[in-house]
Amino acid sequence: MSSPVKARADVDLNLMREVRQEVEEFNLEYCRVLDEGRIEEWPNFFTEDPLYRITGRENFDGGFPLGVMYCDSIGMMKDRAYAIAKTLVFSPRYLRHYITNTRIVSIRDDHSIESEANYLVLQTQLGEPTIIFQSGRYVDRFIRSRNGLLLKERHCVYDSTIIDTDLVFPV
Amino acid sequence: MSSPVKARADVDLNLMREVRQEVEEFNLEYCRVLDEGRIEEWPNFFTEDPLYRITGRENFDGGFPLGVMYCDSIGMMKDRAYAIAKTLVFSPRYLRHYITNTRIVSIRDDHSIESEANYLVLQTQLGEPTIIFQSGRYVDRFIRSRNGLLLKERHCVYDSTIIDTDLVFPV
Amino acid sequence: MSSPVKARADVDLNLMREVRQEVEEFNLEYCRVLDEGRIEEWPNFFTEDPLYRITGRENFDGGFPLGVMYCDSIGMMKDRAYAIAKTLVFSPRYLRHYITNTRIVSIRDDHSIESEANYLVLQTQLGEPTIIFQSGRYVDRFIRSRNGLLLKERHCVYDSTIIDTDLVFPV
Repeated sequence: MSSPVKARADVDLNLMREVRQEVEEFNLEYCRVLDEGRIEEWPNFFTEDPLYRITGRENFDGGFPLGVMYCDSIGMMKDRAYAIAKTLVFSPRYLRHYITNTRIVSIRDDHSIESEANYLVLQTQLGEPTIIFQSGRYVDRFIRSRNGLLLKERHCVYDSTIIDTDLVFPV
Repeated sequence: MSSPVKARADVDLNLMREVRQEVEEFNLEYCRVLDEGRIEEWPNFFTEDPLYRITGRENFDGGFPLGVMYCDSIGMMKDRAYAIAKTLVFSPRYLRHYITNTRIVSIRDDHSIESEANYLVLQTQLGEPTIIFQSGRYVDRFIRSRNGLLLKERHCVYDSTIIDTDLVFPV
Repeated sequence: MSSPVKARADVDLNLMREVRQEVEEFNLEYCRVLDEGRIEEWPNFFTEDPLYRITGRENFDGGFPLGVMYCDSIGMMKDRAYAIAKTLVFSPRYLRHYITNTRIVSIRDDHSIESEANYLVLQTQLGEPTIIFQSGRYVDRFIRSRNGLLLKERHCVYDSTIIDTDLVFPV
């Protein structure tokens, strides 16, 4: 891991704003894929050697590598996406992502980016009121590829203390 | 309808960002009018020949021209606004709009803009907890007028499967 | 109070956008401190002679100086922060702030800024579902200091008609 050349307070303001906009644009497309149920495209947002997990605040703050969903290879992510799209049986639902408070933590000299954002995911099932599915924050590391940003790491750190672990959708 | 000269991926990045900011600024004012209950100003955000509707995801995806609220002329919109402001009897409520994930889909060579955004509308009635009134997305077409952007079409595509159809506020 | 040199419609667009970005960046850090429970840092976002209050829409619109929380000096804010951090006994909870619809109302010739934003605060307590804690809007006045923006006034105007007044966290 390269050392951070610039801390949040010192980072060139224009660069930081440019990067913040890029991360916002990335998340627009990421959330759109999930909101539209195009789950099989979800792994496309990651590098070939990603880390993706959904984990609680206590676990994350305590440094525990646990998660109700944990993928440390692109193969695991594709398997999960395939299972959700093709093999799992569950009642249909709509998800809706709201991303706010996107914040650049650091920009390293290898051009990787650490950032965070607050997410709110709402869920609607047939004939039921729309509910808060999960609230939390993304803790991300991006790298730059030929085609723009890719996620090297995404930790979805949820606040919720009650999580439906039977069926885990990516967030 | 003019053909799209630029697809999302190819559109000049600076232009796209400029337009995204304009659409965000438009929605700021639009939502403020609704949040403050200034319903009679709501038609001012539209062209003289607008299409406005609130419709469910299945209807929208299926291409059905239905909606729990449907206005295809500015006169219908003004009638609706007048009715809500002056003639309908209903318990007072506060609405609060949260707009995120604003996304430019295309910029056409007639300067019209296709865009989308996620909306969350919360509702508070006297003595009751604040609830999720509606979650969904705007599917919009803007045109440019002398005074800035105007909505030619706004489809409010809600996720909710339970909608109070007795009294429909614009979203 | 200096007179507003520029109304919303006339303000130089680039300046307005620059300032809007600054206010968004300010709120990112402000909300992060509250989301992470670093309550003792909360007064750092204010001038030495601030006004901070949490008040209902009716009170605010009626011009009443009331509030379920009211601090008109930095000392009161520090006392409140200290009490929450050190002396009050309450069940642990997570808060999550979502800020959208940030809107610059005016930029005065003394460089102070009037702005508004919609806030949504969610709360999670152990073993309970995540709930809407408060929805409302910030009505703010910022001044510029050597170290960036500081809040001279923040009115948190909530929509909610049911507020837990036993224990008031800043919003």
